[in-house]
Amino acid sequence: MINRLVIIGVGSIGGSLARALKKSQFVGKIVGCSRDEYHLKKAVELGVIDAYDIDIGTAIRDADIIVICAPVCSISDVFKKISSGLSASTIVTDVGSTKMSVIEAAKRVFGEVPPNFVPGHPIAGTEKSGVTASVSDLFQGRRVILTPVNNTKATAVHSVREMWQQTGAIVSEMDAVHHDEVLAATSHLPHLLAYVLVDTLARMEDKPEIFQYAAGGFKDFTRIASSDPQMWHDICLENSDPIIAMIDKYEVELKKIRAAVAKHDSNYIKTIFTRAKSARDDFCNDSEL
Amino acid sequence: MINRLVIIGVGSIGGSLARALKKSQFVGKIVGCSRDEYHLKKAVELGVIDAYDIDIGTAIRDADIIVICAPVCSISDVFKKISSGLSASTIVTDVGSTKMSVIEAAKRVFGEVPPNFVPGHPIAGTEKSGVTASVSDLFQGRRVILTPVNNTKATAVHSVREMWQQTGAIVSEMDAVHHDEVLAATSHLPHLLAYVLVDTLARMEDKPEIFQYAAGGFKDFTRIASSDPQMWHDICLENSDPIIAMIDKYEVELKKIRAAVAKHDSNYIKTIFTRAKSARDDFCNDSEL
Repeated sequence: MINRLVIIGVGSIGGSLARALKKSQFVGKIVGCSRDEYHLKKAVELGVIDAYDIDIGTAIRDADIIVICAPVCSISDVFKKISSGLSASTIVTDVGSTKMSVIEAAKRVFGEVPPNFVPGHPIAGTEKSGVTASVSDLFQGRRVILTPVNNTKATAVHSVREMWQQTGAIVSEMDAVHHDEVLAATSHLPHLLAYVLVDTLARMEDKPEIFQYAAGGFKDFTRIASSDPQMWHDICLENSDPIIAMIDKYEVELKKIRAAVAKHDSNYIKTIFTRAKSARDDFCNDSEL
Repeated sequence: MINRLVIIGVGSIGGSLARALKKSQFVGKIVGCSRDEYHLKKAVELGVIDAYDIDIGTAIRDADIIVICAPVCSISDVFKKISSGLSASTIVTDVGSTKMSVIEAAKRVFGEVPPNFVPGHPIAGTEKSGVTASVSDLFQGRRVILTPVNNTKATAVHSVREMWQQTGAIVSEMDAVHHDEVLAATSHLPHLLAYVLVDTLARMEDKPEIFQYAAGGFKDFTRIASSDPQMWHDICLENSDPIIAMIDKYEVELKKIRAAVAKHDSNYIKTIFTRAKSARDDFCNDSEL
C-alpha cells in the first residue's frame, strides 16, 4: 500500500499508471505534477489523479513514491528540482526508455545514484500521447524492466516492483547497459528504420501514388512512424551508442541481401526469409505477439 | 456476367476471389485447377468453387475468363500449359505481385503478349496462405492494378475490371514498369527490411531476451516477416532491379540518419521523424490506413 504517490508528467504512461493503481486500490492519494496546469486539471476531471500541484517542491513533500514520467531528455532537470526537497525515505523511479543516460544524470545531479532511486522502464505505450490516451489496462501482461545499480536498496526495488505488479505487469530486473542494448535492438532500431522508410517514400516524386498503393508491409511501417517524433528523437540522443551499433549490424545484413537479390542467390534469400519467419512463428507459440 | 471462370491455384487469393464472385452471383460456374487434388477437394467442400479439374487442358475449355493465381515464378509454366488449348475469345488475367516479369514470360511463351491477356495485381492478402484463409471480403475497398500493354484489347481490360469491381475492389490501370517501381517501394522493400531485421535479431546471442522484450516496433516487423518466404523470395527474383534501386535509395538515407545519431544532430533527426509522422498523418486523413 502506498499512501502518497506523486507522478511527475501525467501523459499516457503516467496517466495509465495512475488509472491502474486507482483501480487496484493500492494507493491512498495520487498527486500529479508538471508545468502544464491545463492538462493536470484535465487529469483530475477525468478522475485519473486525485489532485495536482504545479510546485514540484510541495508536490513531493511526504511522498512515498515519486514516479518520473517526463521525457528522457528532461529527467535530469526533474532530478535537479526534486534534489533539495527529497526525504530520506522517499522512493524515486522513472519510466524512461533508456536507462544508462538516466543513471548518469542521477550521478551528475546527486553525486551518486541515490540508494532509493530505482531506474525503471515499462515496455508499453501506444502511438497516441497525452492523458486522454491513458487507459487502466495498458500494462496488463506487459513487461517492466527495473535496472537497479550496486548501491540501490533492495527495499526500494521491492516497493517499485510491487507497484508495477499491481498494474498487471510482469516485472524483471536487468543490468542497465544490457537493457539499453536489448531495447536498441527490439525497439529503437525498428522505429528508426520505419521513420527512415516512410520519410524516404514520402519524398519520392510519385508520393501520391506511393501512399495510394500502400499495402500490407508499408502500412505497418507507417503505424510505427506515427509515434511521437520528439520522444524518439530523445531516445536516439540518449542511447546513441547502442543504436549505432545496431544500425551497423543491420547495414551489414542489408548489404548481404542486396548482393543476393542482385545475383539471384535463391538459396541465400530463401534461408533468410525462412529463418525469420520460423523465429517469429516459434516465438508466437510462447507469447501474445 | 461470366459463364465459366477458371481459377488456376485456389489458395487465399484465388479462393477469396471465388468466394466474392459467388457472393455477387456474377459467375455461372467457378472451376478450380491445380496439381493438388487434396486442396481442390477441400475448396469444393468449403463451397469456395463449384468444381475442379486437375487437367489444365480440359479445365480451361470453354472458359470465359482464366485467372492465374499461381506464384509469380510459376506463371510462365502455366502459360505453357494453357497455350495450346486457349480459345481466341478466352480472357486471361493473373494476380502476380510483379508485372514486367509476367509480361516478359507471356512474350517468351506466346511470341507476343496475347491481346486477351490482362496482367493484374490485387493489392490485398494476409500473412496466412491456403484456401482455408480465403474470405469473401478480402478485396473490399482494396486496390487492383491492371497493367495492359499496347496490344491488349480494351474489351478484355473491361471484362477483367468488371470482374474485380464485383469483389468491391477499386480498379485502376498503370504502366507495368511503373507498377513494379511503386510496389518495390511500398511493398517489396518493407518486407525485405522486416525479414532482415527479424533474422538479424534472431541470430543475436541474447535471442531469447530479444524476443521476450519485443515491444511495439518490433512486433509490427515480425508480423510482416511472417509472410510466405517462398512468395517473397519469388518477388525478389522477379522484380530484382526495382528492388535493388530502392535498397540503394534506402541505404543512403540510413547512412545519413546514422551520421546524425552519431554526432547528435538533433535538428536532422527531428526533421526526418516529424516529416515521416506528418506524411503518415496527412495520408490517414484520406484513407483507411
